[in-house]
Amino acid sequence: MKTQVAIIGAGPSGLLLGQLLHRQGIDTVIIEARSPDYVLGRIRAGVLEQGTVELLREAGVSARMDREGQIHEGVAFSFAGRQERIDLKALSGGKTVMVYGQTEVTRDLMEARASSGGLSVYEAQDVAVHDFYSDRPRVSYVKDGETVMLECDYIAGCDGFHGVSRKSVPADAIKVFERVYPFGWLGILSRTPPVAHELIYANHERGFALCSMRSDQLSRYYIQCGLDEKIEDWSDERFWDELRARLPADTAAALHTGPSIEKSIAPLRSFVAEPMQFGRMFLVGDAAHIVPPTGAKGLNLAASDVYTLYHILRKTLLQGRTDLVGKYSEICLRRIWKAERFSWWMTSVLHKFSDDGFSQRIQLAELEYYTGSVAGRTTIAENYVGLPYEAIE
Amino acid sequence: MKTQVAIIGAGPSGLLLGQLLHRQGIDTVIIEARSPDYVLGRIRAGVLEQGTVELLREAGVSARMDREGQIHEGVAFSFAGRQERIDLKALSGGKTVMVYGQTEVTRDLMEARASSGGLSVYEAQDVAVHDFYSDRPRVSYVKDGETVMLECDYIAGCDGFHGVSRKSVPADAIKVFERVYPFGWLGILSRTPPVAHELIYANHERGFALCSMRSDQLSRYYIQCGLDEKIEDWSDERFWDELRARLPADTAAALHTGPSIEKSIAPLRSFVAEPMQFGRMFLVGDAAHIVPPTGAKGLNLAASDVYTLYHILRKTLLQGRTDLVGKYSEICLRRIWKAERFSWWMTSVLHKFSDDGFSQRIQLAELEYYTGSVAGRTTIAENYVGLPYEAIE
Repeated sequence: MKTQVAIIGAGPSGLLLGQLLHRQGIDTVIIEARSPDYVLGRIRAGVLEQGTVELLREAGVSARMDREGQIHEGVAFSFAGRQERIDLKALSGGKTVMVYGQTEVTRDLMEARASSGGLSVYEAQDVAVHDFYSDRPRVSYVKDGETVMLECDYIAGCDGFHGVSRKSVPADAIKVFERVYPFGWLGILSRTPPVAHELIYANHERGFALCSMRSDQLSRYYIQCGLDEKIEDWSDERFWDELRARLPADTAAALHTGPSIEKSIAPLRSFVAEPMQFGRMFLVGDAAHIVPPTGAKGLNLAASDVYTLYHILRKTLLQGRTDLVGKYSEICLRRIWKAERFSWWMTSVLHKFSDDGFSQRIQLAELEYYTGSVAGRTTIAENYVGLPYEAIE
Repeated sequence: MKTQVAIIGAGPSGLLLGQLLHRQGIDTVIIEARSPDYVLGRIRAGVLEQGTVELLREAGVSARMDREGQIHEGVAFSFAGRQERIDLKALSGGKTVMVYGQTEVTRDLMEARASSGGLSVYEAQDVAVHDFYSDRPRVSYVKDGETVMLECDYIAGCDGFHGVSRKSVPADAIKVFERVYPFGWLGILSRTPPVAHELIYANHERGFALCSMRSDQLSRYYIQCGLDEKIEDWSDERFWDELRARLPADTAAALHTGPSIEKSIAPLRSFVAEPMQFGRMFLVGDAAHIVPPTGAKGLNLAASDVYTLYHILRKTLLQGRTDLVGKYSEICLRRIWKAERFSWWMTSVLHKFSDDGFSQRIQLAELEYYTGSVAGRTTIAENYVGLPYEAIE
């Protein structure tokens, strides 16, 4: 079997890349180790940068998002008993973010993939990448007991942090940078109206809290928790009580509670692998980098990798450009490190790290300064809506 | 003996406060444990915020500063082999900083004090503050073998980090916040022309470096060093070699070297004591807070405390206001924590803390973002020239 671009992983990165390339007439095969239901079952972030929204529109998969997604023009920070709103739109020259769940993005992309007639192989076993340093890279996998060998021009490793792509790179060809945070996020999804129309990021002496949402009737809340916490120790009631304790009084009083329909604990990690290109294989999104969820950059960063790779492959495969493939890594990493910085900063100023009084005062001084100065608010706004993509010339 | 305001410490804070109060006809006595020569011999920062400059003008001690001081409209950051200039004036709405050494400020203030006829007691022994929680505070000291008791309305503790004022406060009435950094600054003064017209703050894998100056012919350079370094191990030649190694190549090549006329190692510390008022005693400047020297906020922060206390005492003693004395601490601390934050941030992004790769990349991402974005550059500029003083209404 042959294709132009073999895409490992049918999450939003792989599907979006496939869809964008398909619309340019470039043939792709998507190989996914899991089932479609498993992929759709993963609950992730729900805030899309304007660039991500525009890329989904360019991919022709935006109809439902534009109908059902919520445009947010601001975001709030609560700390020291008060709440400060960042006017994203006014401070970023008119940009906004879209609240629309990653699950919905994935579903829209899966439907588009099905309509396009492009081949997606789900539940592929023993996926392996071969010869990516040569001119004829290959991907092998086992499906229904048979080994399939897929020849291709390029491999896009969109298979996440635990995927096979990055792990297939020789250890001496890759360098990793990592920070593991000493806490996790306990999150619940509940069919209740959100406590506010915009997200609230809360710094509190009891720990971080986040009020988010997926729609008018679907709320997503998080509280910082210890890494040794067990989900079974957290009844819904205990969760709501703890959340209320970390919010300003008027916000806590307005909280609509109800039974959780999902509850989970996630660790927080910063991770970057350099470089992101190895011969004819490219790493995309979580396969190359992880951000802590504070600031909702994960999916958005994957989208900007997809934007860069899409334009490089388009110009390489359709226009015969030979100078662009080698630039993928440096172009992506410039924006990735800025988003890693912002996610690290949001995590650093909002979470409780220790009982050290100086660190706690510095956190509050950071929040006071950055929410209180126009220049400070602008740094938050321009990062939150997403720094510009680098044009691929 | 009686006075209206007893000022402990004849450094720049105490002298400036005395001069400002003197011009309002308020009587002060300044009590200093050291000799005038000792006070003048302390080499400290040399960058004055615009607010400090204006306060020195208001005190009538600016003639030589305005003649000899250098107005700086920008400052440079070097990292990753390149150099980025922050246009302080353009980004702060026209504000600048003045390069004029603390030693010179102190000398000008000492001369003004002498002309004013105000009493300054140098080499006072066994200085002690008494009854500051009562309506009749007192200061005692021994001079020429005799114990003197000074009665006053208010005590201004301008006697620095190691002074007696803060140490006389009951332990349960004060809370301290502290960070000690795992490195020091090795600094030299040399009679050579500065390598550049503006200051250069350098982040380098070998450690931080700073190119500063006192005048056209007097340079001040610093390099980060270990806390266990010994000054006798650092010949001038070794210092110049190490400095050159930490600067961009073109800057290193332009460096004028010469014999050092002062060489010393200083530790770096962040420290804040809360509150800053105890009955009728106020702590001012280093007596209440220390910043690491990165960003040159120490003297400037003392000046803003003096501004606040000057206006509060003026309105209290001359207009009979009774509501202001209790506000000193909260007004000062709001600005102090912002300056502590900026000094901590400058220290954090510019020094080598560890070999941890993630931290190093985040440092570079911070420097890239904050020097690369207009909003980021503005946050540096508005803090570097000094955040506005709060009016005492």
